[in-house]
Amino acid sequence: MAETNSILIKDTTILSDEIKKSSILVVDDTIQEISTSLNKNDAEKVIDGTNKITMPGLINTHSHVAMTLLRGVGDDQSLQTWLEDYIWPKESNLDEELVYWGSKLAMAEMIKTGTTTFNDMYFYMEETAKAVDESGMRAVLGYGMIDLFDEEKMKSELKESEKLIKKCHNTCDNRVTVAVTPHAPNTCSEELLIKSNELASKNDLKLHIHVSETKKEVEDIKNNTGKTPFEYLDSIGVLNSNTVAAHGVWPTSNEMDIIKEKGVSIAHNPSSNMKLASGIAPVTEYLDKGINVGIGTDGVSSNNNLDMFSEMKLTAFLQKVNTLNPQVLPTKDTFAMATKNGAKALGINAGSLREGKLADIVIVDTLVPHMTPVRDALSNIIYSSLGSDVDTVICNGKILLENKVLKTINEQEVIQEVNERAFEL
Amino acid sequence: MAETNSILIKDTTILSDEIKKSSILVVDDTIQEISTSLNKNDAEKVIDGTNKITMPGLINTHSHVAMTLLRGVGDDQSLQTWLEDYIWPKESNLDEELVYWGSKLAMAEMIKTGTTTFNDMYFYMEETAKAVDESGMRAVLGYGMIDLFDEEKMKSELKESEKLIKKCHNTCDNRVTVAVTPHAPNTCSEELLIKSNELASKNDLKLHIHVSETKKEVEDIKNNTGKTPFEYLDSIGVLNSNTVAAHGVWPTSNEMDIIKEKGVSIAHNPSSNMKLASGIAPVTEYLDKGINVGIGTDGVSSNNNLDMFSEMKLTAFLQKVNTLNPQVLPTKDTFAMATKNGAKALGINAGSLREGKLADIVIVDTLVPHMTPVRDALSNIIYSSLGSDVDTVICNGKILLENKVLKTINEQEVIQEVNERAFEL
Repeated sequence: MAETNSILIKDTTILSDEIKKSSILVVDDTIQEISTSLNKNDAEKVIDGTNKITMPGLINTHSHVAMTLLRGVGDDQSLQTWLEDYIWPKESNLDEELVYWGSKLAMAEMIKTGTTTFNDMYFYMEETAKAVDESGMRAVLGYGMIDLFDEEKMKSELKESEKLIKKCHNTCDNRVTVAVTPHAPNTCSEELLIKSNELASKNDLKLHIHVSETKKEVEDIKNNTGKTPFEYLDSIGVLNSNTVAAHGVWPTSNEMDIIKEKGVSIAHNPSSNMKLASGIAPVTEYLDKGINVGIGTDGVSSNNNLDMFSEMKLTAFLQKVNTLNPQVLPTKDTFAMATKNGAKALGINAGSLREGKLADIVIVDTLVPHMTPVRDALSNIIYSSLGSDVDTVICNGKILLENKVLKTINEQEVIQEVNERAFEL
Repeated sequence: MAETNSILIKDTTILSDEIKKSSILVVDDTIQEISTSLNKNDAEKVIDGTNKITMPGLINTHSHVAMTLLRGVGDDQSLQTWLEDYIWPKESNLDEELVYWGSKLAMAEMIKTGTTTFNDMYFYMEETAKAVDESGMRAVLGYGMIDLFDEEKMKSELKESEKLIKKCHNTCDNRVTVAVTPHAPNTCSEELLIKSNELASKNDLKLHIHVSETKKEVEDIKNNTGKTPFEYLDSIGVLNSNTVAAHGVWPTSNEMDIIKEKGVSIAHNPSSNMKLASGIAPVTEYLDKGINVGIGTDGVSSNNNLDMFSEMKLTAFLQKVNTLNPQVLPTKDTFAMATKNGAKALGINAGSLREGKLADIVIVDTLVPHMTPVRDALSNIIYSSLGSDVDTVICNGKILLENKVLKTINEQEVIQEVNERAFEL
């Protein structure tokens, strides 16, 4: 007899560590069985997986989701101008309600394009947590601390982080964990960075930080500390296997060794690095060294969407053209970055479809012109698909999207709320 | 009273040379009027344009559409290996029926992602013309001539081109024109190139050719002729304002001057150039010099889809990161490349929404999460949209897609036919 809270995805093309035709049984929040002998009586709910590719939910390792509110702000500007003249002035007008609706809109977009987990750094994060609770997604959330070398600010920023940890860590059936998130080594004082690390260690949390995004940042940090960004962070004891460093565009060879030795994960953001002209991260070299690299979208105004399918294609393309070698970043490596490498970076038991893993699953339609024919499901996912091909999304064993319809978010309400509020900023 | 064969797109955001709210009246194949005072009695068919962006149909300036059959063949290989070991052996098994179905599948994909015109070079082109006739698209079609320096082959290739001109030029209500399309300066003899040019001149046709795609091609041509590719073509009189040169990745400064002086148009293919690791075309420099540059997808197996929205985003991103200058390729320049520059390259009276222009029009839905909010319709189209946001497509005054449903192609039939046939190759 079927177990309660069970879902069967029947006769599908499973794309994970290998490609195979089989069926998947989900019970509660877990993948209980993968087998060709499962049948429709084994679950309460049966999803027909024929002509569909079933894969792990995508993991966005670097985001600022409420920035959907700022979509289209400050296009075609450099990071510094974009931040100082466009983004920061508008962000100073943010409030709880705006962040709630901006986060909810982002979740509508992420679910519809196959993302089940995101790693976020922003403000009013309790509101983002509330939206995660309602949407059914999985997230690592951090309050983005910036003290700009002001001691009072440092103290109040740390308090905000501590408050978020108390309020939100391990909530929403453990779908939400909290990370400590100092913004960057050139916007945070040394003391803030050190205390952030202490706070993360004490609570066994991830530490998520921007590092080595632009040449200018590298120069500024060199001028201030005599060290390159990763060297500096390492010298004050901040780097370890709980660190997720976003960007990592300009590492020296010595910094690569440090990243490897300390077990730091890199969150690579190809769209953002291209749009802001920050540079091309040496992803191929990172992977060759055995460094764990995930993929992120960054915030919407440096992208300008949250489609992880586009980011996968771009990750592969950018490395190929930059090295003039079409063989680098073959499809399986790119796919691993967006799935199991992301899970490793964030410390979650997901990112591949195996018995015992959390049931974070995405089902993609193949009976559309641009996915025809399917010679190789992996190739079609990386190079041919659009985020909008996602048909069904399951996170933590719950269905969040079915036949392309959101089940936990009222899509038109969210669109209307954001359209009414975003222009206040 | 409403004229027959008329369509009114009412109260929409028009995105063309400028952005404005207005209505568009199409009569027969032409945009007759753009005015805020048009009302629903002015046309037989009325389309509600509120919450939608209405823009020119996208123009794909370099394609091999029947290569949809080869989707997923030879991923992650260099151009030479990809061609010689993967593509050419399979192409030798092509026949009329396969090309017909492959072309039809491509048209389903192109229409659904907002392309109304494509510039194609391939084999069995009468079959592609037949599919254009049925689909209602606009196309420039050429038989891809390759003689590999064999004189008999040269003669038979030219005969094929002449046959295609007689049979298909200015057919399908003038939606189809024929171009002369020698494959490339390193796969065609000098005599074939010269005779191609004579054939094009005599019939006032476009000449569409691959030029300067890879470093290897440049080296090979230098070794054979002592000249770089554009210098060589110019020395034999082949370059003029009817030339569409696909790729143009590795031009010297002298070649840029030749391209400008002769009025050659460049078809830029960012996905293909990145996937095959061919290199990064100097699009910014081309545009700075006043050279006309359009955008193309190239064939599906070096992409692997035909989504011109992705190509626009990629065009902008690649130039920004390559020059480390986020201000290059601002949205209006990228948009012009995919619309009016393409129309100029192909010599068609389309590419912008103005009275008297051909009615090739695309309507994009904005009430979706990833297009919310719309601060700037142009920014959302270039950076946020997915090809699947296209709601309605009009080509030559006929509706080809409505509410995302193809009106001239039986989508599931085409998918099934290709799935049954593609694996024969």
